[in-house]
Amino acid sequence: MQLGVCYYPEQWPRTMWADDAKRMVELGITHVRIAEFAWSRMEPRAGEFVWEWLDEAVATLANAGLKLVLGTPTASPPKWLIDAHPDVLPVRADGTRWNFGSRRHYDVCSEIYRRECLRIVSAMAERYGRHASIIAWQTDNELGCHETVPSYSPAALARFHAWLRRRYETVDALNREWGNVFWSMEYASFEAIELPNLTPTDANPIHLLDFRRFMSDEVASFHREQVDVLRRYAPTADVLHNFMGFFTTFDHYRFAENNSLDVAAWDSYPIARTESIALPEEQKARYARTAHPDVSAFDHDRYRAIGRGRFWVMEQQAGPVNWAPWNPVPAKGMVRLWAYEAFAHGAELVSYFRWRQCPYAQEQMHSGLNLPNNELSPGGLEVQQAAREIASIPEFARLDAPTQAATAVVFDYETQWMFEIQRHGKGFDYQALVFDYYESLRELGLDVDIVSSKADLSSYRLVVVPSLAVIDDALVAQVERGSAQWVFGPRSGSKTEAFAIPQQLPPGALQRVLPMQVLEVESLRASLAPAVSIDGVDGIAMHWREHVRANSETRVDAQFADTWPAILTHGRVRYVAAWLSHALHRAVLQRAAQEAGIATQLLPEGLRIRRRADLTFAFNFGAQQVQVPAPANATFVLGQPQLRTGDVCAWKDA
Amino acid sequence: MQLGVCYYPEQWPRTMWADDAKRMVELGITHVRIAEFAWSRMEPRAGEFVWEWLDEAVATLANAGLKLVLGTPTASPPKWLIDAHPDVLPVRADGTRWNFGSRRHYDVCSEIYRRECLRIVSAMAERYGRHASIIAWQTDNELGCHETVPSYSPAALARFHAWLRRRYETVDALNREWGNVFWSMEYASFEAIELPNLTPTDANPIHLLDFRRFMSDEVASFHREQVDVLRRYAPTADVLHNFMGFFTTFDHYRFAENNSLDVAAWDSYPIARTESIALPEEQKARYARTAHPDVSAFDHDRYRAIGRGRFWVMEQQAGPVNWAPWNPVPAKGMVRLWAYEAFAHGAELVSYFRWRQCPYAQEQMHSGLNLPNNELSPGGLEVQQAAREIASIPEFARLDAPTQAATAVVFDYETQWMFEIQRHGKGFDYQALVFDYYESLRELGLDVDIVSSKADLSSYRLVVVPSLAVIDDALVAQVERGSAQWVFGPRSGSKTEAFAIPQQLPPGALQRVLPMQVLEVESLRASLAPAVSIDGVDGIAMHWREHVRANSETRVDAQFADTWPAILTHGRVRYVAAWLSHALHRAVLQRAAQEAGIATQLLPEGLRIRRRADLTFAFNFGAQQVQVPAPANATFVLGQPQLRTGDVCAWKDA
Amino acid sequence: MQLGVCYYPEQWPRTMWADDAKRMVELGITHVRIAEFAWSRMEPRAGEFVWEWLDEAVATLANAGLKLVLGTPTASPPKWLIDAHPDVLPVRADGTRWNFGSRRHYDVCSEIYRRECLRIVSAMAERYGRHASIIAWQTDNELGCHETVPSYSPAALARFHAWLRRRYETVDALNREWGNVFWSMEYASFEAIELPNLTPTDANPIHLLDFRRFMSDEVASFHREQVDVLRRYAPTADVLHNFMGFFTTFDHYRFAENNSLDVAAWDSYPIARTESIALPEEQKARYARTAHPDVSAFDHDRYRAIGRGRFWVMEQQAGPVNWAPWNPVPAKGMVRLWAYEAFAHGAELVSYFRWRQCPYAQEQMHSGLNLPNNELSPGGLEVQQAAREIASIPEFARLDAPTQAATAVVFDYETQWMFEIQRHGKGFDYQALVFDYYESLRELGLDVDIVSSKADLSSYRLVVVPSLAVIDDALVAQVERGSAQWVFGPRSGSKTEAFAIPQQLPPGALQRVLPMQVLEVESLRASLAPAVSIDGVDGIAMHWREHVRANSETRVDAQFADTWPAILTHGRVRYVAAWLSHALHRAVLQRAAQEAGIATQLLPEGLRIRRRADLTFAFNFGAQQVQVPAPANATFVLGQPQLRTGDVCAWKDA
Repeated sequence: MQLGVCYYPEQWPRTMWADDAKRMVELGITHVRIAEFAWSRMEPRAGEFVWEWLDEAVATLANAGLKLVLGTPTASPPKWLIDAHPDVLPVRADGTRWNFGSRRHYDVCSEIYRRECLRIVSAMAERYGRHASIIAWQTDNELGCHETVPSYSPAALARFHAWLRRRYETVDALNREWGNVFWSMEYASFEAIELPNLTPTDANPIHLLDFRRFMSDEVASFHREQVDVLRRYAPTADVLHNFMGFFTTFDHYRFAENNSLDVAAWDSYPIARTESIALPEEQKARYARTAHPDVSAFDHDRYRAIGRGRFWVMEQQAGPVNWAPWNPVPAKGMVRLWAYEAFAHGAELVSYFRWRQCPYAQEQMHSGLNLPNNELSPGGLEVQQAAREIASIPEFARLDAPTQAATAVVFDYETQWMFEIQRHGKGFDYQALVFDYYESLRELGLDVDIVSSKADLSSYRLVVVPSLAVIDDALVAQVERGSAQWVFGPRSGSKTEAFAIPQQLPPGALQRVLPMQVLEVESLRASLAPAVSIDGVDGIAMHWREHVRANSETRVDAQFADTWPAILTHGRVRYVAAWLSHALHRAVLQRAAQEAGIATQLLPEGLRIRRRADLTFAFNFGAQQVQVPAPANATFVLGQPQLRTGDVCAWKDA
Repeated sequence: MQLGVCYYPEQWPRTMWADDAKRMVELGITHVRIAEFAWSRMEPRAGEFVWEWLDEAVATLANAGLKLVLGTPTASPPKWLIDAHPDVLPVRADGTRWNFGSRRHYDVCSEIYRRECLRIVSAMAERYGRHASIIAWQTDNELGCHETVPSYSPAALARFHAWLRRRYETVDALNREWGNVFWSMEYASFEAIELPNLTPTDANPIHLLDFRRFMSDEVASFHREQVDVLRRYAPTADVLHNFMGFFTTFDHYRFAENNSLDVAAWDSYPIARTESIALPEEQKARYARTAHPDVSAFDHDRYRAIGRGRFWVMEQQAGPVNWAPWNPVPAKGMVRLWAYEAFAHGAELVSYFRWRQCPYAQEQMHSGLNLPNNELSPGGLEVQQAAREIASIPEFARLDAPTQAATAVVFDYETQWMFEIQRHGKGFDYQALVFDYYESLRELGLDVDIVSSKADLSSYRLVVVPSLAVIDDALVAQVERGSAQWVFGPRSGSKTEAFAIPQQLPPGALQRVLPMQVLEVESLRASLAPAVSIDGVDGIAMHWREHVRANSETRVDAQFADTWPAILTHGRVRYVAAWLSHALHRAVLQRAAQEAGIATQLLPEGLRIRRRADLTFAFNFGAQQVQVPAPANATFVLGQPQLRTGDVCAWKDA
Repeated sequence: MQLGVCYYPEQWPRTMWADDAKRMVELGITHVRIAEFAWSRMEPRAGEFVWEWLDEAVATLANAGLKLVLGTPTASPPKWLIDAHPDVLPVRADGTRWNFGSRRHYDVCSEIYRRECLRIVSAMAERYGRHASIIAWQTDNELGCHETVPSYSPAALARFHAWLRRRYETVDALNREWGNVFWSMEYASFEAIELPNLTPTDANPIHLLDFRRFMSDEVASFHREQVDVLRRYAPTADVLHNFMGFFTTFDHYRFAENNSLDVAAWDSYPIARTESIALPEEQKARYARTAHPDVSAFDHDRYRAIGRGRFWVMEQQAGPVNWAPWNPVPAKGMVRLWAYEAFAHGAELVSYFRWRQCPYAQEQMHSGLNLPNNELSPGGLEVQQAAREIASIPEFARLDAPTQAATAVVFDYETQWMFEIQRHGKGFDYQALVFDYYESLRELGLDVDIVSSKADLSSYRLVVVPSLAVIDDALVAQVERGSAQWVFGPRSGSKTEAFAIPQQLPPGALQRVLPMQVLEVESLRASLAPAVSIDGVDGIAMHWREHVRANSETRVDAQFADTWPAILTHGRVRYVAAWLSHALHRAVLQRAAQEAGIATQLLPEGLRIRRRADLTFAFNFGAQQVQVPAPANATFVLGQPQLRTGDVCAWKDA
């Protein structure tokens, strides 16, 4: 359990630096991230590097005993670079170019820009790569933020052509795979292919999907080029990137492949995220000051998978922020709670954003650990409390990494893209479906691993697949091999890699272990709500339902009032033929967990628990004081069993 | 009563073609439409025609005994054509060009594209024009779809100038007619005139209207050029176009003038249409699985007028589709019901879209008569049932064309344009007003003809004009001449051809037969709801109300609570001075029908009846089982008097 | 109390002019505005002036005894000018150019256009500047209308560079003031600075603010250039501009500085304005036919300040208009009432728009005093009544200018810009907050002056500052100096001139007279509603709340249920730490007025009173008949104490 902070020495007078470093250490902070937006100070004019100020900043912080994370400054190319190479500016879907004046104004496909990035990263890494206090490097900042993936530039088109050529080899193969005979969309060469924007009606879904795959690979290779430089000059430092929560415009699993990441770091703004994502209005209201109880946990569990066990919170909300539709002050205790929550889910480090609120420019309304007048903010005072607790509780010093959970939830980026490209019904959002399943499991008191469908799932007792567009033989083999209970949600196996309907109808290859066929599907307006009852719980289908034909071997466990099957089971495999209302999802998962031999307990509203090593943590996000479900003989190492809103406790079972 | 299907041989292996043809015939299908998206297969490279595959497809289908409709492939120009002539791409209102990658990516005003179209249509017609099994030709596909009318290209501007010159002869005349002295909008030449997009505030309404008239004429002449070629090479075949329902971007009456059409064909997707058009939310909910009971009938009756008696359903929804905000599975029975409904309204042919669901590309979620795995879909099974019934019921074999109804409803495209250009109140939609009147008449059990205001209306007993922006002397003469009851709705006679207020105030020339003047008009927010009672029915004005001064000869039949007249009558002419709530419209029309000597009967909710020859058909779109209003001694040729949801019956009066 | 009208002789046959003039005089009209859209008639081709028609129009009106206001025609450059100089067209934020075809299609930053304007204004002023009947000149028309401020053209960029250079002198100073170290936004030269559009995320707030300051200055200098010409040729005429209500895209106080205006004229469309501005839906419904009782008064009081006491209503709504989302007919009496209301607030002239409804072009659905058939409209009849009353009531002939009110409300344009740039919470609108305070004072029966924060406020007894982003030493000195009660709302003193948070935290310099600090702020979704009770009135915080620390000298007068202070007081200074629900604002202001020795009386719903000279006017905007609060011995010079909806009365106290 280590605490960090983000710091921008270039934004403050040098006279403040030493005092800042001293106060960080006093507060209990061990790590500090710097430099990721300072290109115009490192290189004020093309080729003229100025390191002196950064040397001093690094030295000041290191001398105070702090460990440093250095960010490459490529998220904000300076104006001189844009003036020299205006084509670096990215192009929007409507064909206009973005302009200089904020950040992320670069085209990830620009080869000129990639060259410029390698130049600055090399210079920086060469200078600081072997500094003993610099223990990690961050590439860029929040790749994809502000919807800057994709770009529709000529550079993107040229690289897309090359990408397609690598994937399909011949344009005939591409025409065939894409089904371009439809609407006379056939191409005579790779060069004839356009980007899929500005079409009068929908572009071919596989055209859109391949473009998303391509852009995802571009983001990964942009990062990878920097990593290669960093590995050379900073061979012992960790390399990371600070991802954003709930961002799906590139495939984070692929991004992390081939040693491209040592740690998955992410930026956690739970309240703004709760306000921004697709949650029922009633939940946004209830959790406006605490954030939804699963909104951080979901990404902790996801990024733990991306980082193959190692994850950090690179930026942690420290008070009210500036960028959500509304920005309330967090409930008392939350800034402290979020740190413990991250640790309970396995974080090595929680680093707050930012040391001191910057009184000018775009983020002046974004709080930090200090107010602009340099006194500790309310959030800063909570961090102070947390740091003191951590220092005083011996169990927290020797906390092991979290072990694998019994339950896995599969999250798949390509499924997100495919169902965005083809929602079929307004409001169908794959990630929201996964989140609803995840929330159900967490309400039942379970620890959850979020995993890739390509991971080794053999040691889970329960594998939940809220949906998975493409089901390949390898996954079916995993189902066949083990002894786990499997739950598949709607639209599973509904597509091939080429974005087509499988020849044997959905759920495609899954039919090998679950004999059934989807004959027709329907997206549902809110007023169409087919009723169904599962294990005594009444509810409805929302958004999506399938008309399924069960093979005689397959059992129909629940059916809708109009007799269409709702739940089908064959051996250890369950299929949920609709997007069900929340309590039904929970009923299905509770039954599956029971059959998997996993004990569940329905937690009070707003309470969540999470185990790490021999400790169980409990967090109260709800409006009421609650009693945590600790055994009578539990030993509390933090707090006590009655939790107020925003409070946390941790205990050891006897 | 003949059944057809849409088929895309180019999308399937040749090995399937013969079996497909055989199964079509077995199903009871007699007609098949092909080829309308296959340009890239007919002409894979500029000037290189490949007919061999199409020869075989035509032969295979013809040999199985099927009659063919051939579509010209001009809705989807291939990529090589776009690469050779990028100016063929249309321009959006914001000035950007649409791109290749879907369909309808052409500018109807492009003279190069028109030349290319004549080239492919000539080649195709020359080859297949005299084939005995090819009994009809379709031009293009769904002109105007995806809001591709209008285009704002340089080509459009040049042709607009020529069109204006033909209409006005001198620019002084144009300046005068348009009232360009207003805001110094005067032009020194036709060439100085711009397209009416990108103006800081509203363009001159007559400028907008003339541009819409021009674009409507462009669509018609684009079609007409193909027709001229087809007439030459295929002199005995019918020529048609497949219109869309509820599309008003061009004037269908003008389109059909001068022998440009033999049959008005249209594409009927009742459920998606119900979801898409401006209907009260409560109706969208109630009819989500059956479609609104009048949404198909309205266009059957409209296209019967466009085709001067002859109309086909070229594409009929056969199950769930892919393009509405939500796409539910139709209620059981609807796929069969829609066919009978079309026949009852006079259709010669109902052709389902499509033979088999295509598992790839843009329409993969659009159902057909067969699932992608080639078994009959639920919709296919209903078509099978309908085909067997039709074959077995002798009355259906010798069914005469429908006769003229006693009641006419005037629908006018220019009125739609004028009230779109000048809604005056948010949500004012002329077509929705016409639909509300139409629905009222159908609820009263009446057969309705939809007609042009320029048609000969002399033999109707009741003529309903929900609104008609321009009332000319010819129409007033029709009112004066006959003995029919006339009902005029609000905004009737409110404009001149030049989009100005008539000198004598609205309703303009109508004052000759209905002495009254509209002094002021008001558009109404939902919270402004002037109350009125008509024949014991209470209701309100919505959207629109007029402050009318009745001449002493004119009787005020109903007035609002604040004393302004609601219904004014003079002889056989009624004026409705507001958009009334639905039950009031029905009350007004019931009274008018009664005075016209037309018997009415209020049908149970969701039930509709329609007479053809000596048969009366009944259709149940409602949620409840209902008893049809057949006389006691009626002979049922199909079904029986108790109708479940989605069921149909037909009887002969004794 | 003088009545005027807007007239467009160029739109009517000359044969009507003399009769129009005669009928105006008969109606009681004394002033007529002409010519402001007639450039294409004054100069049909470049350099060819045609004055003959205007000579005749001026003579005809003058000979009838009317006084004339001449408008410069620069709001609608003719097509020949645009064809010669296409760069005159303005550029939208998305980079596309607006097009000819309506009005306001010019870039205020275009030096070519400014030159052309001076040419036409000089020619016009030279010809008519000394005409005895032309008593005033209006520049352009409704500057900023149709959101035509700002422009993003190259011309704007060039002039922005010059403006920045004048303001900051060196680019280093600009970088420092703007805080461009943030996100590497530093510039090497003024020329490197871009306009703040098309940035992937927010531009620097000070960049946006300086651009708005610049555009505001551009509008002012555009006007000023014309004024300089007019002063030369028409030295005795008043110079004015017709502003729009609720328009804040330029700083009207700065606009009026340095003798740039003799009279502040404005265009009053109360019903359309009520429909368009951010009012609670319930108020829009209640006042749909009368307009909100404060919507005109607010701008009367504001423009009285802009015109340093002299203001006119240049265009007054005379019936239903054409441009709001819905356009109802005004309640009976309103067209007359609005004139008296303007006079009560100090207007010298109320000029109706327009003489006769124009039956063609964009404004054909905009009513006037005459219908298109030249009979008086319902509104015209009300004006006739008002004119006769005014002529017959001697008190109205010798009505003095209004005296200063006891209560001032500060309205500040820069605050509007800053809080638009940085709403921080969706729906935060500064002007709506000011309006809520203003409405509260008016409901309490008070006369109000709206004032600039830079005005001399020394003789007010109560100064209300709903918010003021920047609080400078001069304002604090005014607080310290006088004996007035001061009320400051939330976000007061929250920013510096450079759009940064003050070093000592908000409320900045105000802390000198009100020792407190704002630690954190929060924007509130509707479901977050902190409760508070003030003087027995219960309510909530909406939109915005601050977490404030009171210094021990400062008294907390009210606190929220969660204990944060709601009202803080120190001596004569109050701070309201949130946007409160309406009744709470009224409670706060009632208490402050009481302590200032100003008597209040809560008026019945919809009633407003306003004093001028020795008369008190009362206006009933409400749905119920009400009794006005006149003393028992009052003498009524107009109407009587019982007021129906839409009625007005005026009395003298005994």
